[in-house]
Amino acid sequence: MPSDKEHIIGFDLGGTKMLAAVLDKDDRVVGRAKQKTRAQDEPDVIYERIAQTIEKALKSAGIQATDLAGIGVGSPGPLDIAKGKILDTPNLNLRFFPLKDRLEKSFGCPVIVDNDVNVGTYGEYRYGAAKGYRHVVGIFPGTGIGGGLVLDGKLYHGATGAAGEVGHMILQVGGPLCGCGQHGCLESLSSRAAIARDAVFLSATGSSPTVLEEAGTDIKRVTSKVIRNAIRAEEPGLTDVVQRSARYLGIGIANLVNILSPEVVVIGGGLIDRLGDSYLKTAEASMREHAMPFLVDKVKVVAAKLGDDASVLGAACLLRESLTKAES
Amino acid sequence: MPSDKEHIIGFDLGGTKMLAAVLDKDDRVVGRAKQKTRAQDEPDVIYERIAQTIEKALKSAGIQATDLAGIGVGSPGPLDIAKGKILDTPNLNLRFFPLKDRLEKSFGCPVIVDNDVNVGTYGEYRYGAAKGYRHVVGIFPGTGIGGGLVLDGKLYHGATGAAGEVGHMILQVGGPLCGCGQHGCLESLSSRAAIARDAVFLSATGSSPTVLEEAGTDIKRVTSKVIRNAIRAEEPGLTDVVQRSARYLGIGIANLVNILSPEVVVIGGGLIDRLGDSYLKTAEASMREHAMPFLVDKVKVVAAKLGDDASVLGAACLLRESLTKAES
Repeated sequence: MPSDKEHIIGFDLGGTKMLAAVLDKDDRVVGRAKQKTRAQDEPDVIYERIAQTIEKALKSAGIQATDLAGIGVGSPGPLDIAKGKILDTPNLNLRFFPLKDRLEKSFGCPVIVDNDVNVGTYGEYRYGAAKGYRHVVGIFPGTGIGGGLVLDGKLYHGATGAAGEVGHMILQVGGPLCGCGQHGCLESLSSRAAIARDAVFLSATGSSPTVLEEAGTDIKRVTSKVIRNAIRAEEPGLTDVVQRSARYLGIGIANLVNILSPEVVVIGGGLIDRLGDSYLKTAEASMREHAMPFLVDKVKVVAAKLGDDASVLGAACLLRESLTKAES
Repeated sequence: MPSDKEHIIGFDLGGTKMLAAVLDKDDRVVGRAKQKTRAQDEPDVIYERIAQTIEKALKSAGIQATDLAGIGVGSPGPLDIAKGKILDTPNLNLRFFPLKDRLEKSFGCPVIVDNDVNVGTYGEYRYGAAKGYRHVVGIFPGTGIGGGLVLDGKLYHGATGAAGEVGHMILQVGGPLCGCGQHGCLESLSSRAAIARDAVFLSATGSSPTVLEEAGTDIKRVTSKVIRNAIRAEEPGLTDVVQRSARYLGIGIANLVNILSPEVVVIGGGLIDRLGDSYLKTAEASMREHAMPFLVDKVKVVAAKLGDDASVLGAACLLRESLTKAES
């Protein structure tokens, strides 16, 4: 059933903050809102905040909920994509939460929920650094390392809806213990958490004055900013740790290139934003060194360019496409 | 332009032997032929043998080349799939060889050429052990380890046409040197060549009487049969080597499950045929141990069941579909 409602919402539900954007019929952003998530509050309190953020975005666009054709949401996984349900997610107290059903009830319009990294990759593919390609690998190192795949021009979900768990690809059998219980996953070798683990070791053994001064020996205090400051101070220990992290990231990407033969790899996320170009260049050089020549020669590596907007725009775009499909 | 020609050929060009099958309009095999490849002969001699094998298959089906609607070929890679050209392949003296053009000229019908492991996976997907699924990973350990991907019901090629190089996924940074020049690729840890490398070490150091007796200390003489005999003799050294190979294979498959979330993994190829069920069971247990639970819980692992027919039938099927597409 075609609808004459033209506005849609893209929503990014993060562990730290939540963002909503209202898009008009030409997919221009005409309203926005943002709030802290406070991820460990009670589920109903968090949900109330989600609904408020959407209301605020509607207000800033000067429209009503009844003008909405739909809402697209990016959420931390694992998810049941078909049901729009958040499953047993570690960083957000919305476990086994029927987000799609709740939002459809509150706002009276269709809702889709997809993985945050998927929608971020899709946003970069449709509007950002990977626009114009058909085979895209998105990789977003932060506390963990998330991945999204666009294959043959479509967001790829696999059989369970949860494909793209690139952070738990094993690169080093018998390597460091990962949060998932395995050894030597990409996340255990290259994430911000992996860098922080090695940084507090340096701090505790007297090899990183910057980390010691700014974060002491508490791994929770080793932020991307502390890491960046130690590199700027040209500390050899921390520099070595970060270079290794970038080289491992490159090996993980090389594996994805060998398996998937993408045209472009988009790298984004908090760690890249802080560590910037030299981190990216080291990762790219490592990727080119470790992938098969005839597969890697034409692969481009680009930095994500939409920042926080990748997820809201990607989620909105997926929603728009699901509406168009439903009409046809 | 629709054609009233109904017969097609599926052709498997292997490093050791070549096979042709003639399929009628209902895709029943109505003729066959087979010859040794003699892969290091002059290119024109090999090509002549390919053409003869097709002629013999036509004869056994009682039809003429003029009755052919097309030929589908599975060939060792790397290939330029779009041009149907074999590139710089190591195991066959048809380097930079325009196989599609030559066959189209010889037989006056459309020809497609695809990777041998791709067409084998596709055959198992359409007619064999993976029939009825939409997301299939095929993995074929032998001298090397080849992979084929069926994603969302379609054979996946990636940007270059050469996706699925799962054998060169790095599992062990700094591990054994691989034939490709990298260290710790799946092939360097789990292929028949990797088992043979460790077997001659055992033979030379007095830890494998069976290998010493049947193959001496020459790695080229360590066939799958020799390996199987040493296992049947319950030699602890060789048994350990083969178990490790199976466990590494399982870790490689776990990575593919985490990345692609398939419904089914089909394992085939020469090594599996010889080492059989216990090898497969060890690989599966290792996969289940190393992949993320919510991704692996519903994944089935099955042995390929078409043998040599997987490639000829898969190639024929891809050809049939390309003809149907061209007509529509």
